[in-house]
Amino acid sequence: MPRFASFDDLRAACLDLPGPDATAAEAVAAREGRLTKPPGSLGRLEDLTSWLAAWQGRNPPDLDKPEILVFAGNHGITAQGVSAYPAEVTAQMVANFAAGGAAINQIAGAAGASLKVIPLSLDEPTADFTKGAAMEEAAFLDAVGTGYGNVSDASDLVVLGEMGIGNTTAAAALAGALFGGGARFAGTGTGVDDAGLARKRAAIEQGLARHVDVLGDPLRAAASLGGRELAAILGACLAARHKRIPVLIDGIVSTAAVAPLKVMRAHALDHACVGHLSAEAGHGLLLRELDMTPLLDLGMRLGEGSGAAVALLVLRAALACHIGMATFEEAQVSDKSE
Amino acid sequence: MPRFASFDDLRAACLDLPGPDATAAEAVAAREGRLTKPPGSLGRLEDLTSWLAAWQGRNPPDLDKPEILVFAGNHGITAQGVSAYPAEVTAQMVANFAAGGAAINQIAGAAGASLKVIPLSLDEPTADFTKGAAMEEAAFLDAVGTGYGNVSDASDLVVLGEMGIGNTTAAAALAGALFGGGARFAGTGTGVDDAGLARKRAAIEQGLARHVDVLGDPLRAAASLGGRELAAILGACLAARHKRIPVLIDGIVSTAAVAPLKVMRAHALDHACVGHLSAEAGHGLLLRELDMTPLLDLGMRLGEGSGAAVALLVLRAALACHIGMATFEEAQVSDKSE
Repeated sequence: MPRFASFDDLRAACLDLPGPDATAAEAVAAREGRLTKPPGSLGRLEDLTSWLAAWQGRNPPDLDKPEILVFAGNHGITAQGVSAYPAEVTAQMVANFAAGGAAINQIAGAAGASLKVIPLSLDEPTADFTKGAAMEEAAFLDAVGTGYGNVSDASDLVVLGEMGIGNTTAAAALAGALFGGGARFAGTGTGVDDAGLARKRAAIEQGLARHVDVLGDPLRAAASLGGRELAAILGACLAARHKRIPVLIDGIVSTAAVAPLKVMRAHALDHACVGHLSAEAGHGLLLRELDMTPLLDLGMRLGEGSGAAVALLVLRAALACHIGMATFEEAQVSDKSE
Repeated sequence: MPRFASFDDLRAACLDLPGPDATAAEAVAAREGRLTKPPGSLGRLEDLTSWLAAWQGRNPPDLDKPEILVFAGNHGITAQGVSAYPAEVTAQMVANFAAGGAAINQIAGAAGASLKVIPLSLDEPTADFTKGAAMEEAAFLDAVGTGYGNVSDASDLVVLGEMGIGNTTAAAALAGALFGGGARFAGTGTGVDDAGLARKRAAIEQGLARHVDVLGDPLRAAASLGGRELAAILGACLAARHKRIPVLIDGIVSTAAVAPLKVMRAHALDHACVGHLSAEAGHGLLLRELDMTPLLDLGMRLGEGSGAAVALLVLRAALACHIGMATFEEAQVSDKSE
């Protein structure tokens, strides 16, 4: 039996979300105020430790078992000439992940995170969304369920990344469906030229026109315009919320994938933090729609969860400060003069 | 015999600077172009590996022995009520560094860097610069020489941090001396209230007026308005250039400390990267004057080298990608379609 039997069944799960553990978050914030530094002087590092505690539901929080999940999918929309790379690169990169040769393998190592790569029916690309729905209901729900099922109870943080030639086109189309404005979320992706970008925009406009009937329904829009890896990321983000595991989101694809959750429920992404601002043009626009502020801005635009995995290093620094620092009392340092 | 005998002697050393190793930098950039990712998709991470190679003078670069140097000094200007904390906190925090209880201890651990703390005559604060020169020539050169001498030939990267109650006032005064505009670089530092900020601005304006005769000479301005830890940071940054060691600069104090080098020689800070943008208001203004772009913007304003040490984690991720990733050939991944 599939984890989610229908759009309605999945929608119900998306609306049934636990809140933060305010007690744990407040305990962390109170300790931050006693550590040997001016109050607030660690900036977002202090917010991050409270956020970790709030969504792990424990004080102190920990980062013993962070996991990076990279979902991979293929896209029929590549038939429209929207990518600078051929579609077979998706499977080739999955092999590269397995061999340890990709950027995310190195960053995972540097950040002390495990890495799991989940290819999703790579030999069955989604349909070209200018011609029909990218996925029928069952295929979409299957991918969501796969993402949901790949989040381990043992993880204390999940990084959500992806690989899929053509998927910035799917992400931009989905963002356009959710927030309007046609193809404004389209960018050059892996590096298309002007003609490629024009084809990408045209494909997105066509897709939005063809699927105009479902644009008001975030889940149906995700099925019609998204991709298997985007659906899996949505499922994994939802599972993390249900299991009390904080999430780091990566670039435009990862962000577009989880956006339907927030459209359905305003606080649905409170357990998620955006690791970085992608250089892909539409990411900043999309984050503005979602009212989310990325941690890093390093001009990265690779996907694979790479930017979010770099952000995990910042979380590690934040947590090390929170746990290891002395309080004013312990260190016999004079607190602020009155 | 002191390392630098006079302002003129030091100035000569500041003008005699080796350039980058273009061959090493180009070799690194060429490899970046063959790794399994779209060209440029790791953004600043790719620039950072080339920069490391250029200034270490080797391909590939390494980060086996990064060292964080934290210089500490006391400031007579605290008599003007410019800080939220009493002056004895400088020595108390030096003890806290030694005991491992400060933020920089934890971040150094997370970043795999060694930490050396160098207190500079803490029982002899510099003079109140509203009344006279903060340091006479000999005291200034002595501190510069201490900084210079503390950079080890064995380091492959140096993070320059500081501790000193009152030193954001000294830093803002020095920045005002170098770039004009009076007290515009003043901020709330460790957290002064409005009255404290008004006293800080007034002290800076007074100092700039009193030392107007030396404002055209960056080294004399640094002696008259700066502090021992700022002078030591200038010396350490200069030593790193002479020894071919890249530098990570921290917040407003660390940046103001090295600014005289760039005023004297336009390319003097090319071996230095600014680790983060401090929340201290004047830092962004100062970086604009120096035309330097920080790596991180996390709302930190602690000093101690803490922001730059977090940035070291990003460098580690960059280097891990550069060294560990497979090339398109090795991984048999199809390169960009033509």
